[in-house]
Amino acid sequence: MAANPPPTRSPELRKDSVTGRWVIFSPARAKRPSDFKSKAPENPNNNPSSCPFCIGNEHECAPEIFRVPDDPNWKLRVIQNLYPALSRNLEYPIGRNDEPSNELGGWNQVVPGFGFHDVVIEAPVHSIQLSDLSPSEIGDVLIAYKRRIEQIKGFDPIKYVQVFKNHGASAGASLSHSHSQILSLPIVPPSVSARLNSMKEYFNQTGKCSLCEVQSKDLLINETSHFISIAPFAASFPFEIWIIPRDHSSDFDDLDDEKAVDLGGLLKLMLRKMSLQLNNPPFNFMIHTSPLQVTNSDLPYSHWFLQIVPQLSGVGGFELGSGCYINPVFPEDAAKLLREVNVPI
Amino acid sequence: MAANPPPTRSPELRKDSVTGRWVIFSPARAKRPSDFKSKAPENPNNNPSSCPFCIGNEHECAPEIFRVPDDPNWKLRVIQNLYPALSRNLEYPIGRNDEPSNELGGWNQVVPGFGFHDVVIEAPVHSIQLSDLSPSEIGDVLIAYKRRIEQIKGFDPIKYVQVFKNHGASAGASLSHSHSQILSLPIVPPSVSARLNSMKEYFNQTGKCSLCEVQSKDLLINETSHFISIAPFAASFPFEIWIIPRDHSSDFDDLDDEKAVDLGGLLKLMLRKMSLQLNNPPFNFMIHTSPLQVTNSDLPYSHWFLQIVPQLSGVGGFELGSGCYINPVFPEDAAKLLREVNVPI
Repeated sequence: MAANPPPTRSPELRKDSVTGRWVIFSPARAKRPSDFKSKAPENPNNNPSSCPFCIGNEHECAPEIFRVPDDPNWKLRVIQNLYPALSRNLEYPIGRNDEPSNELGGWNQVVPGFGFHDVVIEAPVHSIQLSDLSPSEIGDVLIAYKRRIEQIKGFDPIKYVQVFKNHGASAGASLSHSHSQILSLPIVPPSVSARLNSMKEYFNQTGKCSLCEVQSKDLLINETSHFISIAPFAASFPFEIWIIPRDHSSDFDDLDDEKAVDLGGLLKLMLRKMSLQLNNPPFNFMIHTSPLQVTNSDLPYSHWFLQIVPQLSGVGGFELGSGCYINPVFPEDAAKLLREVNVPI
Repeated sequence: MAANPPPTRSPELRKDSVTGRWVIFSPARAKRPSDFKSKAPENPNNNPSSCPFCIGNEHECAPEIFRVPDDPNWKLRVIQNLYPALSRNLEYPIGRNDEPSNELGGWNQVVPGFGFHDVVIEAPVHSIQLSDLSPSEIGDVLIAYKRRIEQIKGFDPIKYVQVFKNHGASAGASLSHSHSQILSLPIVPPSVSARLNSMKEYFNQTGKCSLCEVQSKDLLINETSHFISIAPFAASFPFEIWIIPRDHSSDFDDLDDEKAVDLGGLLKLMLRKMSLQLNNPPFNFMIHTSPLQVTNSDLPYSHWFLQIVPQLSGVGGFELGSGCYINPVFPEDAAKLLREVNVPI
């Protein structure tokens, strides 16, 4: 039997009004969208006896920030990263980031690496992955992110909090025990500035928030009372997913307990669908929210969302050089496949 | 015997005046700079009998654009990519990229995927890598890039030409026969716009070109009559190298034959030093030049350069989310190590 030929469709460039990024959609380079499967090896460290994140091994970790419940039988812990990218022990010379440094780079700017780098241990037991938890337990993880962000808001030098999860060694996870990270930065990072500029431009031209206005018909995967999940119009990566709150909300920490459980359920569904469709790929998710220390806490053009990226292909010189990605799968095809994945109960 | 402890140095954030990007330097997360070695496997396809790029297998390739010399005994060939990311066969509806499309994305922009995607086969023989060629032969490869860019300049819809090389499977190379690629785009990609904006800002504030002004003392690796190689002040990646023309030049295709040989020698030296220091890592190089169709062909603030990035670590959720990289090696340490690599003659 001959296989059906792959669909022939011309390549197309799309620019997303949220990220402001151009992406090349180039289906001729790929197998059929339904043929995408991960070939990544399983996690490297699957030995619970040597895992510092397992319950009982708390003494092997860096100091704890809080645990839930506050009890030896915890369900999740927020701790300091033992190898932090930024240091909480630096004195922060306020204003220095506006002054040029002449030591090495002339006009180049230097800022001391002050910040917080925290780890959220999502479950006490080694074998449990985030998607194994109930919607309410995933909601607890999301509320832990919120609680930590609210603590960090008190620190003037912190300008942005990046919440992210690396799952699988090739997605950057060095430990296989389910965890996510919270990195608090003394700058607003470049992708955040670019996103806010792009959303502001849309707002200035249309009077509307680009994520409130998402045209989700062909791009919709699933929806709940408070959230929708879509394949974004100009997805940088094949099978990239965005989960967006229905109501306009500029800050992730607007999330309340009810919405956290609702989001937990949709996140669980997306992770399970992705795992079934793509053969349990390594993945990252990132929360895109608004900068801290912004006077107008509810920016009319900024709308937070959660981005999920399965790691199916590497990055080469073209992407490094141009900042432009080549995606072999049109988002409407990815959305259709993910919409129709049959998830066993 | 106890090993020397790694140097303790506080983390630091740096913003480069050329790329406009913030990078976190976080030495505490790493082994010592001199301990960096690639663990990447060798190239997958090392079977010359099945390689379409080998001399004698020309019939297995997409059509040729030109060869040097124009003779059955060629030394390099420029051909079409058999799996092009963009199509040369689309009719390009001029002006459409300024109009919003309402089909799927509302205000999102869509541009037909018109463009050229070419491959430069750098040597006729399978076992020869670019760094095995003589400076003059590498110069011929560089002049082939220039010649192709000059052809492409005649096509109004093409706004930018990205020249890049992927070496090694994990750097994105699907064939191990030494080759590079030239992708001609109907847009100016985001990293190029960001770079030009950053260099323009520097120029407006100082009246000078930021790459003419590079303070290379501690960052210098090597220099020739016409070029310098440095570890850039805010390198995104450990052991990243830039090769910069000494004289102000905004377009790569200003390169003449003499400078091409000079650059060929310095590129060869950098690739050999990188290979010796880092255990033959996969790598990418990218040429960063000015957009086409710009009326002022010699932009006072734009200065082309060649960027070399060894692939020593993957990208995780933090980098994907924030656009900000964490580099465990300070550029001045990388420069010192690379400066001192002893290259056998």
